[in-house]
Amino acid sequence: MHRIPVGVLGASGYAGRELCTLIADHPGLDLAFATANERRGERLALPGGSVTFVATDDAPINKAELVFSSLPHGASAEWVARVRAAGPRVVDLSSDLRPGHSAQSVPYGLTELNRTTLKDAPLIANPGCYPTAILLALAPLVRRGLVKPGATVVADAASGVTGAGNSPRAEMMFGEVTENFRAYAVGNEHRHLPEMRDTISRLKGDFDLLFTPHLLPVARGILATLTVPVTSITDDLLSPWREDYANEPFVELAADPPAIRDVVRRNVVRIAVRRVAGVRQPTLLVFSAIDNLVKGAAGQAIQNANVSLGLTESMGLPA
Amino acid sequence: MHRIPVGVLGASGYAGRELCTLIADHPGLDLAFATANERRGERLALPGGSVTFVATDDAPINKAELVFSSLPHGASAEWVARVRAAGPRVVDLSSDLRPGHSAQSVPYGLTELNRTTLKDAPLIANPGCYPTAILLALAPLVRRGLVKPGATVVADAASGVTGAGNSPRAEMMFGEVTENFRAYAVGNEHRHLPEMRDTISRLKGDFDLLFTPHLLPVARGILATLTVPVTSITDDLLSPWREDYANEPFVELAADPPAIRDVVRRNVVRIAVRRVAGVRQPTLLVFSAIDNLVKGAAGQAIQNANVSLGLTESMGLPA
Amino acid sequence: MHRIPVGVLGASGYAGRELCTLIADHPGLDLAFATANERRGERLALPGGSVTFVATDDAPINKAELVFSSLPHGASAEWVARVRAAGPRVVDLSSDLRPGHSAQSVPYGLTELNRTTLKDAPLIANPGCYPTAILLALAPLVRRGLVKPGATVVADAASGVTGAGNSPRAEMMFGEVTENFRAYAVGNEHRHLPEMRDTISRLKGDFDLLFTPHLLPVARGILATLTVPVTSITDDLLSPWREDYANEPFVELAADPPAIRDVVRRNVVRIAVRRVAGVRQPTLLVFSAIDNLVKGAAGQAIQNANVSLGLTESMGLPA
Amino acid sequence: MHRIPVGVLGASGYAGRELCTLIADHPGLDLAFATANERRGERLALPGGSVTFVATDDAPINKAELVFSSLPHGASAEWVARVRAAGPRVVDLSSDLRPGHSAQSVPYGLTELNRTTLKDAPLIANPGCYPTAILLALAPLVRRGLVKPGATVVADAASGVTGAGNSPRAEMMFGEVTENFRAYAVGNEHRHLPEMRDTISRLKGDFDLLFTPHLLPVARGILATLTVPVTSITDDLLSPWREDYANEPFVELAADPPAIRDVVRRNVVRIAVRRVAGVRQPTLLVFSAIDNLVKGAAGQAIQNANVSLGLTESMGLPA
Repeated sequence: MHRIPVGVLGASGYAGRELCTLIADHPGLDLAFATANERRGERLALPGGSVTFVATDDAPINKAELVFSSLPHGASAEWVARVRAAGPRVVDLSSDLRPGHSAQSVPYGLTELNRTTLKDAPLIANPGCYPTAILLALAPLVRRGLVKPGATVVADAASGVTGAGNSPRAEMMFGEVTENFRAYAVGNEHRHLPEMRDTISRLKGDFDLLFTPHLLPVARGILATLTVPVTSITDDLLSPWREDYANEPFVELAADPPAIRDVVRRNVVRIAVRRVAGVRQPTLLVFSAIDNLVKGAAGQAIQNANVSLGLTESMGLPA
Repeated sequence: MHRIPVGVLGASGYAGRELCTLIADHPGLDLAFATANERRGERLALPGGSVTFVATDDAPINKAELVFSSLPHGASAEWVARVRAAGPRVVDLSSDLRPGHSAQSVPYGLTELNRTTLKDAPLIANPGCYPTAILLALAPLVRRGLVKPGATVVADAASGVTGAGNSPRAEMMFGEVTENFRAYAVGNEHRHLPEMRDTISRLKGDFDLLFTPHLLPVARGILATLTVPVTSITDDLLSPWREDYANEPFVELAADPPAIRDVVRRNVVRIAVRRVAGVRQPTLLVFSAIDNLVKGAAGQAIQNANVSLGLTESMGLPA
Repeated sequence: MHRIPVGVLGASGYAGRELCTLIADHPGLDLAFATANERRGERLALPGGSVTFVATDDAPINKAELVFSSLPHGASAEWVARVRAAGPRVVDLSSDLRPGHSAQSVPYGLTELNRTTLKDAPLIANPGCYPTAILLALAPLVRRGLVKPGATVVADAASGVTGAGNSPRAEMMFGEVTENFRAYAVGNEHRHLPEMRDTISRLKGDFDLLFTPHLLPVARGILATLTVPVTSITDDLLSPWREDYANEPFVELAADPPAIRDVVRRNVVRIAVRRVAGVRQPTLLVFSAIDNLVKGAAGQAIQNANVSLGLTESMGLPA
Repeated sequence: MHRIPVGVLGASGYAGRELCTLIADHPGLDLAFATANERRGERLALPGGSVTFVATDDAPINKAELVFSSLPHGASAEWVARVRAAGPRVVDLSSDLRPGHSAQSVPYGLTELNRTTLKDAPLIANPGCYPTAILLALAPLVRRGLVKPGATVVADAASGVTGAGNSPRAEMMFGEVTENFRAYAVGNEHRHLPEMRDTISRLKGDFDLLFTPHLLPVARGILATLTVPVTSITDDLLSPWREDYANEPFVELAADPPAIRDVVRRNVVRIAVRRVAGVRQPTLLVFSAIDNLVKGAAGQAIQNANVSLGLTESMGLPA
């Protein structure tokens, strides 16, 4: 089979390396180049071979039909424009072009919700990791108008350290993270809120989201615990999710609350729903788990590239 | 100084061993005996010496003026009655005599809230670890009627594994817990809810508590993230806590959200408060961290014993 | 392609589950059954499906052409005999039939060393995890007579907890293993020594092995640090390994000492060699890393099954 | 009691902070100042209070009778000279003045071995963490001439990450260290070797030391596994250690191999000895565990300060 040549900008970060690894295992894609300015000349071992990093300025952009940008937030938009001008499609993993961050209206690559707008799209803004976990879990309720109007949905979530990238920072050293746990970006101010609010608004949700992230002493994985005031509760709790995700290869519905371990190294979101006893306001607990580097970043980027390029959506992805 | 002889029933568990260690370092207490049926005859190393476990049936109860029971839930009440009948005071760390678990009305040893009823008390029910973190954080709002009537307070909390005791269980093995995170006892059904509801009710709170615990890959520590709908927000966010806890040696108010690491091996609760942006319902985030084995169990038990026995409340406790 | 039906006895342990997972991803094998007495009736999720455990007594042995036994040491031999009597080939992952443990002379499945005796073998004793790491690292020196006669080779090794299986044991609980490290089975008494001595003897090695295992706070992986007194040191340190392993798909030679992370979830052994400064006795340090559940257990078992069944040796294995 | 004023240079590193904490709990010392150039103006919480970092240039050196230098290797020697010129005594925790690193002959603060030279000493070079664990374990054999002449003693050791300091480095990030294990500084080239060789030489040892350190996924602790070829083995294995360390408050002899957990947060070295079966060369395994930040750094520095200042040697130290 002909493999479509693709490139990765910013390939030395956690998401960038995960992309290169997934591409190496992908039967329909071929890694044409991978850039990493500070590590240029170094080799990255990959399944069945390796790739040598080049400087981003030296990337042979025209050799690729599609380019993934895993450049840092703020630095990515300029390169996305440059690549687009040269021809190749782009899936941008940074927040630069996501709803609420850009004046452009770029298709938002939450694949299960926006698949039709992603088909053949030349440019896709890949979602943040937390929004992926939270929005896929909430969407079936929001679409049905089941979230109580005016209410606050509490989204407490916890992520492994790779969500923060691999630039050396004092607070991410092993000695600081092991045997520890803390909230960060508190007060509903996290960079991922605009894209979540935008999607909720598009789905006609009339509620507020209160998102508080926490840092876990694990390498990978996100677990979101969502408290959702609802207008009513049906006996068959999971039916909205079962209906919406009946044919989705990357959504798992579970009877028991998911653990991070259930989803690590897999391109899935795993969702469970529970009713709540002893409270006057009808309320559902919705739990959602993903691997932040796979379904929350590189895996979903591949999924979006597959959709854009007309490949089978699940091709090359571990489910 | 004369040291008051005390004993520990059920001393081989995590809380029991912590108790023995704290007693060994306590200038006013002397460890008269420590029981552990399955490990009887074994020695437990302690600061400045050791103790040899005896069978609970062989405990020289009358040598103690006060006995701590760290026996399992369900097995403790009978021994508490036996010790009381023999004379010594008791601090019971099990849930057997806590509000909602017993028909008896036993003073509830959340020291900072109930100090007057604990003075000279012959029997004290020591609080659960989660209730300690959550109730001390909520009390100043509840007392002032600031929690919105009829609302749901969301209490998402995460604990280290020692909260589950040290009996071998498949799901608590290192290979299952490392690099993992999950909720448990979901649906608002945890054993600690009755004592929390009782205290909220005594403080005239008219709201529902939705408590969801999670298991962290750490040995010790609890972090509770509380979302509290309030009737109003004052500029000086921390003032209710500052007023109520002005003279409390074991309550720390912090500007930044506390980390588990801030409180490990200390008999303190550390609390921070933040207002929330972007939601219509005025809401506060209250964060609360404790060491589940110290302020959440053995340390608070010593604190209660100090109060009961007329010793300085902070004696022998690491703040 | 026709898939050869295989079964797994003792499939609920760590190695057994890894076997089932690898078989599910194997293009030439089909999982006919998986047994687990205490979990019979439970389903195990696998790539692309699941399997339901049956009791070992109920295993449809005759449906399989080859059976893997991952039953506990001591319990495996009897079942191996029963399966063999019924017809299917067996790869036994227990120690029961390994050299030094059995009067039988069963081909020892250290594939890279014994490939010719494994071809078409109806019964193979799969090596222990530590011997796999240590023997593959030492063999090129031993074969060449380069280890100093009469000397002691010091093999200090450290393993993740899955090497000890998943039966609940107090000393393997998360609270006991996290932030800890210790030696065990000290004094050169580990169960894996007989098979190591047997292989060394077959390779005409005339030296003593001093093996001290340690327990790491990680789930998977073994690192062995071998101190080898040698008769001489050549400039091209790695040449013995390069010559012996030139065409081995599952042996990696590295310039830098391997980390456990380099080999996790892969069916490889990664070896590095360094000369030692400042000692009178010419000495090499040989480092060897494997994933104890893959190359150290289930992966090598598949590799041996491939050889026995005449499949491509690397089929279905992650390198 | 009068408390002797002391200062700490370089107080924001792991060892420096441990020093400040130990001094705050020390009944005979008073923390006059703590310096940290990059964090000047920040407060460090301490038991019973706090200290505000000042720039090293602004340290009120003359207010102290003794100064601990926890400045980086290479930067410390100059400041030690400056402090000495101004009057105060110095305990230097860097390697700058240790044997093999300096032309000066500075008393080497391995307290148990060199106590007489440390009494009233105005300047003490505090040992490295690995040498503390290894030399205290070997000394009783070396003094008695029991190590086989000309032999190689293999010292494989593993340390927690705090041994590497708290400057942000890519390879010490949580995401790189968790679930990993590797050797470093291999080939017998570690910076701690000169001081170990010097002490062995002073004790008339005629053997070579082969030291290979490893990095553990834990915050604190060192375990050294020493393989020692000996001239003979007596029945009472531990007698040399028992004789030499009979009155040592900070040396523990154990029947079972020590775990890191046994010594964390304590100023002790814990040693166990085992004979080895199945090798021709009579050999002992000696295991040694310390907390690298306490007995391996700050605790031993306090111990040395106590000796220098004429205080009780164990004052203020957790045993």
